[in-house]
Amino acid sequence: MHKSRLAGFIIDCRTDDLASAAGFWGQALGMQVRALPGEEGEKYVRLVDPSSELHVEVQQVNHPSRVHLDIETDDIDAEVSRLEALGARRVEQVQTWWVMEAPTGQRFCVVRRSSPGFDARAHPWK
Amino acid sequence: MHKSRLAGFIIDCRTDDLASAAGFWGQALGMQVRALPGEEGEKYVRLVDPSSELHVEVQQVNHPSRVHLDIETDDIDAEVSRLEALGARRVEQVQTWWVMEAPTGQRFCVVRRSSPGFDARAHPWK
Repeated sequence: MHKSRLAGFIIDCRTDDLASAAGFWGQALGMQVRALPGEEGEKYVRLVDPSSELHVEVQQVNHPSRVHLDIETDDIDAEVSRLEALGARRVEQVQTWWVMEAPTGQRFCVVRRSSPGFDARAHPWK
Repeated sequence: MHKSRLAGFIIDCRTDDLASAAGFWGQALGMQVRALPGEEGEKYVRLVDPSSELHVEVQQVNHPSRVHLDIETDDIDAEVSRLEALGARRVEQVQTWWVMEAPTGQRFCVVRRSSPGFDARAHPWK
């Protein structure tokens, strides 16, 4: 048995100015902007969800701007297989996560569990 | 002074089969699928967030599939003006809400407050 849940979403922005993009979205959503350390900070800026429910980041990308959902899980392989059985397809593996595409066309990611309340909140799948 | 907060997101699906699209996303996210009554139910299906934090719906659309964020507010005009001052632009008014576009290109909506915890959780803007 493995578990998964909606971790949050990533606001993908095709921009040369990640700081301005994050500034807009932080103000728009009323979320504090937090720089990330090291290499991660070159492409990602964290937006702090006041309810502490969601992992939200603004990402600098080269593809058209969009919003994509992240599903977190304690077993990436099992979760990717479950989603394939539902009709999604694998797009590419990036570092520790998988980019997938829904039958309806939206891209989303399957990422390693990271939220504090994961065990209590995630859905168990048989 | 008015308030706003992230209400949730809408999964826009270009499909002739709204029920199947909602079925996929409900299973993918571990959220219960709930039909909506009347005319609304022809285009929208509710996904019930187990944490009760987010308003999530699957919408049948004619434009390319995507995910868009909804910002809820107690004053649509004031919130749209605030977002314009941040660099967003108005796209069109639909029924009671405004479709807007971020400086980074993503479409999002400004909708009337509807979450139970709005007063406590929303961000006040001067």
